[in-house]
Amino acid sequence: MPKQLIECIPNISEGRRAEVYDEIVAAIKAVPGVTLLDHTHDTDHNRSVLTFVGPGEALKQAVRVLYTKVLPLIDLTRHSGAHPRMGAVDVVPFVPIRNATMQDCVTLALEVGKMIAEEFKVPVFLYEEAASAPHRGNLSDIRKGEFEGLPEKMKDPRWHPDYGPAQPHPTAGATAVGARMPLIAYNINLGTSDINVAKQIAKAVRGSSGGLVYVKAMGVPLANRPAVQVSMNLVNYKKTPMYRVFEMVRAEAQRYGVPIVGSEIVGLLPQEALLEAAAYYLQVENWSPRLVLENNLEAES
Amino acid sequence: MPKQLIECIPNISEGRRAEVYDEIVAAIKAVPGVTLLDHTHDTDHNRSVLTFVGPGEALKQAVRVLYTKVLPLIDLTRHSGAHPRMGAVDVVPFVPIRNATMQDCVTLALEVGKMIAEEFKVPVFLYEEAASAPHRGNLSDIRKGEFEGLPEKMKDPRWHPDYGPAQPHPTAGATAVGARMPLIAYNINLGTSDINVAKQIAKAVRGSSGGLVYVKAMGVPLANRPAVQVSMNLVNYKKTPMYRVFEMVRAEAQRYGVPIVGSEIVGLLPQEALLEAAAYYLQVENWSPRLVLENNLEAES
Repeated sequence: MPKQLIECIPNISEGRRAEVYDEIVAAIKAVPGVTLLDHTHDTDHNRSVLTFVGPGEALKQAVRVLYTKVLPLIDLTRHSGAHPRMGAVDVVPFVPIRNATMQDCVTLALEVGKMIAEEFKVPVFLYEEAASAPHRGNLSDIRKGEFEGLPEKMKDPRWHPDYGPAQPHPTAGATAVGARMPLIAYNINLGTSDINVAKQIAKAVRGSSGGLVYVKAMGVPLANRPAVQVSMNLVNYKKTPMYRVFEMVRAEAQRYGVPIVGSEIVGLLPQEALLEAAAYYLQVENWSPRLVLENNLEAES
Repeated sequence: MPKQLIECIPNISEGRRAEVYDEIVAAIKAVPGVTLLDHTHDTDHNRSVLTFVGPGEALKQAVRVLYTKVLPLIDLTRHSGAHPRMGAVDVVPFVPIRNATMQDCVTLALEVGKMIAEEFKVPVFLYEEAASAPHRGNLSDIRKGEFEGLPEKMKDPRWHPDYGPAQPHPTAGATAVGARMPLIAYNINLGTSDINVAKQIAKAVRGSSGGLVYVKAMGVPLANRPAVQVSMNLVNYKKTPMYRVFEMVRAEAQRYGVPIVGSEIVGLLPQEALLEAAAYYLQVENWSPRLVLENNLEAES
């Protein structure tokens, strides 16, 4: 059977004390079957993001190791930072990568959520594709009020946790565990210094103001060059492919006589997102990912 | 150490007797470490093409198994077909795919060539990147005269084999063993029924008449639709990328007011060729294959 690969991207509420997050990162690295792809630490946000992949069972063990390390080391009653947070382990998303479906990730989120609640007495809220009710789908709604507001918020039956105690953990708060599509952070640079052009284009392409439903976008200035940027998150690259976003930005920019001077991919992205763009621009009539030699190797292994 | 993957695409002179080529294919499939990706059989050409991958050592064993099967089953003195051929096993190219360089493939070609000569008494000519002299680089020059012309041709010192006897094998002839880049078979369809447009564009883009050096092209009519085709082989997609070929065909077609209506990839192609096209069209400034999540997994395994 082909090896299942799921990505797990826990966000933890420590981005300043290197001795703390280094110890946590080292422990994850040592979990058999898990490959750590990336870890970033932000002092302003006082938050770290770990990215690792593996089959579901290995990821479950990695999350167990994560809590074992985090609980004695991170105390949210002493935590401050720019990023909203409600837990020492704040959020644990699972993302299908290879030989795994979204349903596999939902099943894993439920299983891992239950394990966290039972073994560590931390209440768990399921979110996004794993959410147990429509009002609990959006992470920002779950986290609204943050760690400090949890004791009051959790009295509301609409905000009872999916697993675990009815009150927050005294130092670790609560965790959101979910399943979602891979997110692509994609920025397009425009040949103008007029920030309003970037803001207008961002408004035109993002779902929240009438544009593409799976695009989040904002216009931002660039410090070191005479250009402005449409900074985006593509939250479902299968339903809203990269090339469509690129072409819509290009079409909107034409209204201002502004060219696209380049673009930037932040972090990692799934191969399929770029292959689809190539197939679009090269107008491949018989397109299938099976045309890619390497994809035939992986299916066999 | 990352696992070495080299592709081997032997062409054998049997494409009609299914019981013969099925037995050969089954034997290759059973070689440990080898993954058979594809096999095609052409009755007009009376020729079969096997495509398999693996590390060098496994491929060497696969070629040994190939000769063990082919020698008693295929007799070139009784062979006819449209495709030029000089051997029962006609040509054995090695192509670097992953964690392998062209030099690795050249080394492997020499080693396998020597093995074929010693163990099976079949003379071997090295070709393309593995060639021992400039006049022996091109496969069609080596094969000129075919099986029937070999006894006379091999008397010329310029056509002594690199390994093995100074005369052809009585029933198996000789084999060309080489190393080359992956070849991409790529066809672009034009929205006209005028075959001359396809022929003129093919002439403009192919290296042999002044176009792109690593492109072979011809204009062909399409039987089942009102379109014509520029049918191409891209023999070095790293130096002449797909998008550049596509854009040159588009630019040439504009002279005739003819649109590109689609394109077609024949067989398999390396992932990198499409990723580079995506990076070009999306104008990615920070492009690197390392941005692709899956490529980070493979580097670790």
